[in-house]
Amino acid sequence: MNRISIPTYSDIEQAHRIVQKYAHRTPVFTSTSINKIVGGNLFFKCENFQKVGAFKFRGACNAVFSLTEEESQKGVATHSSGNHAAALALAARMRGIAAYIVMPSNSAEIKKKAVAGYGANITFCEPTLQARENTLARVVAETGATEIHPYNNFNVIAGQGTAAKELVEDIGELDIIMAPVGGGGLLSGTAISTKYLLPRCKVIAAEPAGADDAFRSFQEKKIIPSVNPKTIADGLLTSLGERNFAIIIQNVGDIVTVSEEKIVEAMRMVWERMKIIIEPSSAVPLAAILEGKVDIKDKKVGIILSGGNIDLGRLPF
Amino acid sequence: MNRISIPTYSDIEQAHRIVQKYAHRTPVFTSTSINKIVGGNLFFKCENFQKVGAFKFRGACNAVFSLTEEESQKGVATHSSGNHAAALALAARMRGIAAYIVMPSNSAEIKKKAVAGYGANITFCEPTLQARENTLARVVAETGATEIHPYNNFNVIAGQGTAAKELVEDIGELDIIMAPVGGGGLLSGTAISTKYLLPRCKVIAAEPAGADDAFRSFQEKKIIPSVNPKTIADGLLTSLGERNFAIIIQNVGDIVTVSEEKIVEAMRMVWERMKIIIEPSSAVPLAAILEGKVDIKDKKVGIILSGGNIDLGRLPF
Repeated sequence: MNRISIPTYSDIEQAHRIVQKYAHRTPVFTSTSINKIVGGNLFFKCENFQKVGAFKFRGACNAVFSLTEEESQKGVATHSSGNHAAALALAARMRGIAAYIVMPSNSAEIKKKAVAGYGANITFCEPTLQARENTLARVVAETGATEIHPYNNFNVIAGQGTAAKELVEDIGELDIIMAPVGGGGLLSGTAISTKYLLPRCKVIAAEPAGADDAFRSFQEKKIIPSVNPKTIADGLLTSLGERNFAIIIQNVGDIVTVSEEKIVEAMRMVWERMKIIIEPSSAVPLAAILEGKVDIKDKKVGIILSGGNIDLGRLPF
Repeated sequence: MNRISIPTYSDIEQAHRIVQKYAHRTPVFTSTSINKIVGGNLFFKCENFQKVGAFKFRGACNAVFSLTEEESQKGVATHSSGNHAAALALAARMRGIAAYIVMPSNSAEIKKKAVAGYGANITFCEPTLQARENTLARVVAETGATEIHPYNNFNVIAGQGTAAKELVEDIGELDIIMAPVGGGGLLSGTAISTKYLLPRCKVIAAEPAGADDAFRSFQEKKIIPSVNPKTIADGLLTSLGERNFAIIIQNVGDIVTVSEEKIVEAMRMVWERMKIIIEPSSAVPLAAILEGKVDIKDKKVGIILSGGNIDLGRLPF
């Protein structure tokens, strides 16, 4: 059996020394009216205010600035339809190196524009995983760039773990920390930080029922790939990475699924009550609470609001 | 000639001692990307995060808690279609007294719900100023409640001035402070604070061209009532109050007008770039900057984002 290299909390501390130089220390918001509705005390870590509008900047930043000088000369590359692409492009620009981004041709306009705006070299491809991987392999072969996987990457996981680290530093003891799960980058980083800092705190992931591969993988104790996922939470369509899964299976207390209807309801509740813009993926943990999937009665619950990138021309309400 | 009683900065200091007990000290946000677009340094005072979602809570709170014990027994009353109604209702509930709110029958659903949710006694009337005033007079006669005008009120003006006070305390020297102008409550309070704290800072108000009574009043040096105003900025439809006008004419540097198109563009820019929800009225100062009506090149500019209450089912994009 292959040993998979997995970050420890000291890797997250090291990542934080890098990340805090370039990323925002995002605020933690609370809402009296939402607390009243749900009957618990929620602490929202606002990664929607992070650079590029998502937690993804933390991981990308740590990956880019962890490259040796020699590695960095040839740039970085990835395939991504979304926030990771923008995050890697910005981190690369900050280091002054090239970013090669493979994007499926059907990516959201707002995300294409963002990536182009950060000065990345974009290659469009057919919107299939096969086409994305083949195109990326070609780009890497041509350029010698270092591939930075959006979640199944040691430095990316360590970077994402800095969000929960800051949350705990700011709020202290929590009974539960919740995060959405897609590929598992945010969740695995969160789980490592939480397990170290708050050993009694339970990490609970929330996932759309229409893209429940992490839920099923967690039950079956092996990775079950996502097949034809359907959800408005467009950041959570991907399958778990093997590094992420190894961490999740050891450190996560539970994974729960939620309906599309509750995701939209939770998103609208945050927009209306907190006056902040979050994307559907960010609303999934609160949706799980509204759906009664997590018992938070009188508990202190940290929730990582993963991002705020949404096309205002195509809202679900 | 009647002398109009007008607050001084020490009244704002006194108001702040009350307001800070009940209101949020809202954060000041900045946006690298908006600064790049406009070529200046903007500091947004986020009153959209204030209780009831608008600066109006400051004035209402000061007015309610400035009543004597005896006055307070009979409650407070006002007519308002919007944020002042919710603000007064909440402030009254916090003091444990009655609030009688006259609302035009065509008020936005979200605002009717909010006011009812704070436990106010609502009386609906025809949507004309005459009907509103007549209905309020009847309610006051029946109940003995103290009328709290939304802006032409000494304690309300002093309360609204606490937003600019906090902004200056947090950021320090500014070249310009901007606020939207409707009835003039926020603008007049802002002008008193700014003149005292930053004598060299220019106060500039922004107003929709479709509701430009303050602009015209400022030019003509007398109050010209608003007639058939038309604008998406529904918080800015009212005419200037006489107390507010007396303060504005002495302490405001300029009033500029903006198009509806730029208001929507500015609002969308704040939503997309800052990931926060502001209502159209809040976007009017930034709209003036985008329209080139205010020279902010390399200047430090404070902008009061007045509120975040908007019906998500009826967005202009």
